[in-house]
Amino acid sequence: MFYEPEQSMIKIRPFAEENWAATWRIIEPVFRAGETYAFGPDITEEEAHKVWVEVPSATFTAADEANNVLGTYFIKPNQPALGAHVCNCGYIVAENARSKGIASEMCKHSQREAVSRGFRAMQYNLVVSTNKVAVRLWKRHGFEVIGTLPKAFRHPQLGFVDAFVMYKQLVT
Amino acid sequence: MFYEPEQSMIKIRPFAEENWAATWRIIEPVFRAGETYAFGPDITEEEAHKVWVEVPSATFTAADEANNVLGTYFIKPNQPALGAHVCNCGYIVAENARSKGIASEMCKHSQREAVSRGFRAMQYNLVVSTNKVAVRLWKRHGFEVIGTLPKAFRHPQLGFVDAFVMYKQLVT
Repeated sequence: MFYEPEQSMIKIRPFAEENWAATWRIIEPVFRAGETYAFGPDITEEEAHKVWVEVPSATFTAADEANNVLGTYFIKPNQPALGAHVCNCGYIVAENARSKGIASEMCKHSQREAVSRGFRAMQYNLVVSTNKVAVRLWKRHGFEVIGTLPKAFRHPQLGFVDAFVMYKQLVT
Repeated sequence: MFYEPEQSMIKIRPFAEENWAATWRIIEPVFRAGETYAFGPDITEEEAHKVWVEVPSATFTAADEANNVLGTYFIKPNQPALGAHVCNCGYIVAENARSKGIASEMCKHSQREAVSRGFRAMQYNLVVSTNKVAVRLWKRHGFEVIGTLPKAFRHPQLGFVDAFVMYKQLVT
């Protein structure tokens, strides 16, 4: 067990448009930094809304008791029809709310959500190898590194770095 | 070396709309069979045109000397901006033109095309494990199985089967 002091205060709810401004405030600096997601650091707010809210099957926000949005994730099929039983998720936690177990809560929530939506597995396609916090977290939640993509991510500071494909079967 | 009797007769050219009917004739039975691509076996011609011609960066056809289209492939970035230096391709050879080296010719052509377009690696995301001819062929052309996705493909006859992520660095 690991200590998650504030997890009981976190409520995860389906995304509502009225929370877009707060959601964008969280995801914009992460996209701009370009260290963990492949989206262009110059992504526009409109494009970000598309990839985070419109394209996915569903998006969620994690908020504290005062309704401050501290995290968000999306879920979508990773492939078309004959691969659509495997989902893909993306998670972002606000910079000032890290290390409080919010990503863990969202990961667990997303796995329950995936099963209830009929998905049988979850796949992360491009986990940047230098994002050690994420790799450790996903492993703790039962994801395996099934392979390493050599130099598949262009890191703004580090250049071409490896990325991992991570996978977890939810229904066996 | 392996014997490719008719490869010298094959010309690979950029796709032209006038070849769509011939291209659809080749790819339709493969999509309908649902054994190798994740696209739904009930895909419409319009959807197929979108995924094979409109979404990709480029599409090519392989034709014999009499201009019969015998094969086709597409090339596109596999991820957005910071992963867009890795491309993805899909290849299909007409049922009556298999085992003549056409897939090999298209694979070699696509690697040259990828490099000339600035891609540094090529990734196949979902190579169905039961498609042994393809797996053998891609290995012969320098692709490695970097990982196995358990039960990631829903095969119409065999049920959930494993799929491979295959990868080749083109520029190191």
